[in-house]
Amino acid sequence: MISVVILGSGNVASHLIHAFLKCKEIDLKQVYSRNLNTLTPFKKDVSITNKIELLKKAEITIMAINDDVISEISAKINNPLVVHTSGSVEMNALKNSGNKGVFYPLQTFSKNKDINLRSIPFCLEAQNKKDKLLLEKLTHLIHGKIYYLNSSQRKRIHVAAVFINNFTNHMYTLAYDICKEYGVPFTILYPLIKETSEKIENLIPEQAQTGPAKRNDEKTIKNHLNLLNENQRKLYLTITQSIQEHGKKL
Amino acid sequence: MISVVILGSGNVASHLIHAFLKCKEIDLKQVYSRNLNTLTPFKKDVSITNKIELLKKAEITIMAINDDVISEISAKINNPLVVHTSGSVEMNALKNSGNKGVFYPLQTFSKNKDINLRSIPFCLEAQNKKDKLLLEKLTHLIHGKIYYLNSSQRKRIHVAAVFINNFTNHMYTLAYDICKEYGVPFTILYPLIKETSEKIENLIPEQAQTGPAKRNDEKTIKNHLNLLNENQRKLYLTITQSIQEHGKKL
Repeated sequence: MISVVILGSGNVASHLIHAFLKCKEIDLKQVYSRNLNTLTPFKKDVSITNKIELLKKAEITIMAINDDVISEISAKINNPLVVHTSGSVEMNALKNSGNKGVFYPLQTFSKNKDINLRSIPFCLEAQNKKDKLLLEKLTHLIHGKIYYLNSSQRKRIHVAAVFINNFTNHMYTLAYDICKEYGVPFTILYPLIKETSEKIENLIPEQAQTGPAKRNDEKTIKNHLNLLNENQRKLYLTITQSIQEHGKKL
Repeated sequence: MISVVILGSGNVASHLIHAFLKCKEIDLKQVYSRNLNTLTPFKKDVSITNKIELLKKAEITIMAINDDVISEISAKINNPLVVHTSGSVEMNALKNSGNKGVFYPLQTFSKNKDINLRSIPFCLEAQNKKDKLLLEKLTHLIHGKIYYLNSSQRKRIHVAAVFINNFTNHMYTLAYDICKEYGVPFTILYPLIKETSEKIENLIPEQAQTGPAKRNDEKTIKNHLNLLNENQRKLYLTITQSIQEHGKKL
């Protein structure tokens, strides 16, 4: 049995709370949020508070809160091991008196979409072997996959994740706009989206690259640019140039 | 039984040839390519030629060749129905004497990766009902999914497909580079890639958008920019601005 306290009520906190409540080997003792209303969905299942000085003791205290306030709030916590869930904040930004660590789930969470934590990569960092084992045990209990990344690697992976998720999703948004404007159902693109994402499990991304930019097909590029609005055109050009530059380096 | 002739030996042609050879209801009578060597893999299974004047008769003649030569080569074909497989070329670019049509599979094909044509969208265009039915029958035989798009819609969907596939794959490439540079296995990003692509089957892309650009988190954006090289930075900035502009429009 591991005892845990969570700070936060956002996407990451909510998914962790759900996963911890489902696991009999995890004793979720309390959830903290500045604004108690955000914890309404959980109050029948777990003790809640908005007073940091009333935080219960637990083996692991997980701060799933805004990056900007991690230092300030952690300074007020006296629990034995305090970890944050941020991809871009250094472990040493934690200012609690006890031990520090990182418990960063590398996944995209939306409140309106259920997600299975099974096989999600958790990027762990700890100061000693005992804490490391404790975080590993917690990760195993929710069926996550363990990776050890130091703060420098984690920051970079966080940027890589922005390219993989945020920027890819924006490509989907632009395609969605085009479909909508010309009366074509966006579902027509689902098989292409699926295949694009699956292809790179067999080929490295550079090998999977196809299209007019890759083959320097200036005529098609010009035709495409004529079909786009100003913002779409700017993106199309910048990404096309980047694909071409990247190809030259190989 | 439908009789078919294919022109071409590239990615699309190869996948169609394989699918047609597997189907007993399709009689693949011949494959044409300017360069006979490119047809070596098929010569034990099907008649091949590099002479357009020796093209056999067939109910459907499929031109899966470079966009630039579709007009020129189609002018030399006297078969009853000639279709091309291009997303960006108008049906009327075909200059054959008989009927014209389009048979555009909306998918990414690589020679080194097998792909199942099942449920792949085929964007069809035809000049009359009989040809329409014939193209529908062919699509059904290889288990494709039928969409009717006119040449104007098809051109736009072709651009949308560039965003969905080519540009998304380039986002993967940039993330791969970062992983490689900092000694983190690219596999750590697989669950994020998968979830990103699956999420938009439940949410429209704009609703699925998360990250520093979406929430105008200037501090994280600045930190990220400091971690990137010049080309990565240019892309990061352009896409971030586009996400922010798009958010304002809603």
